[in-house]
Amino acid sequence: MERIREFELSKEYLESLRDSVEAQDVSGISESIEGANEADVAALLDELDMEEALFVLRVLEREFAADVLIELDEEPQFKVVQEMESAELAALLDHMESDDAVDILNQLVVKDREEVISHIQEKEKSGYIQELLRYEEGSAGSLMAKEFIKANLNWTVVQTIEEIRRQAENVEKIYSIYVVDNKESLLGRVALKKIILSSADTKVKDIYEEDLISVPTYMDEEEIAEIMRRYDLEAVPVVNAKNKLVGRITVDDVLDVMREQAEEDMQAMSGISDDVEESDSVFRLTKARLPWLFIGIVGGLLGAKLIGGYNAGLSKYIQLASFIPLITATGGNVGIQSSSLVVQSLAAKSVFAESLGRRFAKVLMVAMLNGLVLGLVVFGTVVFIYNNEVKFGIVVGLALFCVVLLASFMGTVTPIVLDKFGVNPAMASGPFITTANDLLGLAVYFFVAMMLLNL
Amino acid sequence: MERIREFELSKEYLESLRDSVEAQDVSGISESIEGANEADVAALLDELDMEEALFVLRVLEREFAADVLIELDEEPQFKVVQEMESAELAALLDHMESDDAVDILNQLVVKDREEVISHIQEKEKSGYIQELLRYEEGSAGSLMAKEFIKANLNWTVVQTIEEIRRQAENVEKIYSIYVVDNKESLLGRVALKKIILSSADTKVKDIYEEDLISVPTYMDEEEIAEIMRRYDLEAVPVVNAKNKLVGRITVDDVLDVMREQAEEDMQAMSGISDDVEESDSVFRLTKARLPWLFIGIVGGLLGAKLIGGYNAGLSKYIQLASFIPLITATGGNVGIQSSSLVVQSLAAKSVFAESLGRRFAKVLMVAMLNGLVLGLVVFGTVVFIYNNEVKFGIVVGLALFCVVLLASFMGTVTPIVLDKFGVNPAMASGPFITTANDLLGLAVYFFVAMMLLNL
Repeated sequence: MERIREFELSKEYLESLRDSVEAQDVSGISESIEGANEADVAALLDELDMEEALFVLRVLEREFAADVLIELDEEPQFKVVQEMESAELAALLDHMESDDAVDILNQLVVKDREEVISHIQEKEKSGYIQELLRYEEGSAGSLMAKEFIKANLNWTVVQTIEEIRRQAENVEKIYSIYVVDNKESLLGRVALKKIILSSADTKVKDIYEEDLISVPTYMDEEEIAEIMRRYDLEAVPVVNAKNKLVGRITVDDVLDVMREQAEEDMQAMSGISDDVEESDSVFRLTKARLPWLFIGIVGGLLGAKLIGGYNAGLSKYIQLASFIPLITATGGNVGIQSSSLVVQSLAAKSVFAESLGRRFAKVLMVAMLNGLVLGLVVFGTVVFIYNNEVKFGIVVGLALFCVVLLASFMGTVTPIVLDKFGVNPAMASGPFITTANDLLGLAVYFFVAMMLLNL
Repeated sequence: MERIREFELSKEYLESLRDSVEAQDVSGISESIEGANEADVAALLDELDMEEALFVLRVLEREFAADVLIELDEEPQFKVVQEMESAELAALLDHMESDDAVDILNQLVVKDREEVISHIQEKEKSGYIQELLRYEEGSAGSLMAKEFIKANLNWTVVQTIEEIRRQAENVEKIYSIYVVDNKESLLGRVALKKIILSSADTKVKDIYEEDLISVPTYMDEEEIAEIMRRYDLEAVPVVNAKNKLVGRITVDDVLDVMREQAEEDMQAMSGISDDVEESDSVFRLTKARLPWLFIGIVGGLLGAKLIGGYNAGLSKYIQLASFIPLITATGGNVGIQSSSLVVQSLAAKSVFAESLGRRFAKVLMVAMLNGLVLGLVVFGTVVFIYNNEVKFGIVVGLALFCVVLLASFMGTVTPIVLDKFGVNPAMASGPFITTANDLLGLAVYFFVAMMLLNL
């Protein structure tokens, strides 16, 4: 058998790794992977079957296996976690920071979770984990880690350095030392840089900065991401209702939150119901897409019923049929534009936001302007270029104007309502609102036509 | 006059600040703003007129004014920068890190830029700035700062701490010390934590980590964001073609890149041509929306021409009109779903991606499955519920099937082609592809109808 080569993120290495797994070449695997980056190894294991991935994980050193497990994609991670024995999984959790351990445990049913926690060696860590499991998913509490460095106000720099030394194993990334009083209330922070540059007997209280941004345990993860972006933070302390320091959120977790949010928005806008990727199976992809397409189909069938009701009028004035796509497409486009603008302003809430009344007044103005311009263009084209009657041009132009107004209104209101009910407002830019706008547009179009053409 | 209150991000404070500016109450303004966060002050100035904002900036201490200027929104920042004298602006740039200074300078025409640079006091800084200005916008070179801490391989810890002390003023955030050899080639890094915990005479070469991710100066900012997210980095060193360490990118810049990218994608998908916000003026909002709506209108008018060509057939078979919205809407929905999936996989490029041929085969399979299900549902409804002829049901069902196939193909190919030509592939999910799919769908529908119904 060909000797397995050094680790490389390539299809060739993947193949040779598969061969080595089949041949159970333990030393070959561990040697070739040694020293590689955990995210790269995880990307490789994502491509393997569950059994193969598990085999490789068991070959690796425990601390490194723990790092790789954290970095696995959702689906392979879930499968591997389900398959492991409680004691085996607990041994890996022993090497994780508390927030990562909780992410892993959240993939198990409650009964199994407790079984795994009971196997964790360090009592401090299992306590941390049990605390974190109590916070609601997507809140600061669920995102934070219990591992961070804090210093009492009255400590000296040398005492603080001792604390850093004591915790160095547990806290992978140290940016600031959080300063607390005797009641554990958060008072401020000292940058690591300042610790290095201060003399050993300097008191913490003489060098710490009071100007510090913290977040409460219940804050939503997207809001936290926006705060960290806005204030350029690499970590943010989390406090409970009594301002007691309870955890720390690091920017790497927030980068994941932002990426997920962007993906969710795009999927909501494009009408895909699950978190699928192009590389998923044909069946999964079909399943994720069909529900939204069905909504469109139901809308289309209702539209057919609606138009069918005007068959008599349509027969007399067959040109009416020609402009159906113009009306529905414009309604859809206007609706999506409007809702996307609202979605953006919901994402970046500002205290200086205009009042709801003023916002609607503005939406109305923009819609009137857009509607007027488009209505006139279409009127002109229908009458002067397509040589229809002036009366018919008025029907199409006026209907278009009304549709632009209505679609703007719908596109503005829907995301606000969705957001109020805790639904992702980006849904409003998806197939649902488009379908509703189609029907509304058709109704307006035929109503205006029947009125003005006396059909 | 009422005394201006302590800084607060509120409409009330904004009003009292406006009054103080009008009354030229310099000490009141500086006292109330002192100690506030620069991002908050910037958010406040974003709401003021250019003259008011400039007045406040001139009242503030220079270093703080520089921080606030960096944090201003694009538009107010542009206006303020245009208005300042070269020497005044240079005095602020003196207090910025080089990457921020370059962002500000990029808002000036080349002639003014050089004028401002000539006024910068520190020669080292103006050299940095001139170097950074040479890199292409959106590349690692344009995103990086020249301020970072590096240590020679042969230094001791105490020498390294001396270097940190020397640079502490210039480098705001220190995460790692980058280790270089005598030729300035990047070899690795030492975490600040390790510097604290090592004895003074330890050699850098004995404690540094070789395992380090760096990026080349020409790498695209979105790729850098993906790398920093993937490998959980708070900063990444930038190297030139000879592996010489030339700069450092910090995660705060990357958070902005990610947010901008998400906004751009959403705007491309929803058909908004400028970077507008809900709070912009009616005129600006209208201008940003009209171009895309025009594309839709042109498509709709072409569609009208197309349908008009079949007026004779339509008159004989008036039900055909009823199903026009069903056909166009489904084509649009399928197209957007397909292109969004491609856009996502383009954003997260993987070495394990399937070949183009396999991907198209899969797209075809998914489309056939979706098309089959939807076509059968529509056939059934048209024939059994709406009581049309079987032949007519076949027309609508078959046309729908073809439209799903075509729209899937278009939605998959378009973003790949756009990406190849350096255009944001998310455009493919916007009004353009929807409009094209509408026309294609109509053509297929009427072609199938004319064939099968002998019209």
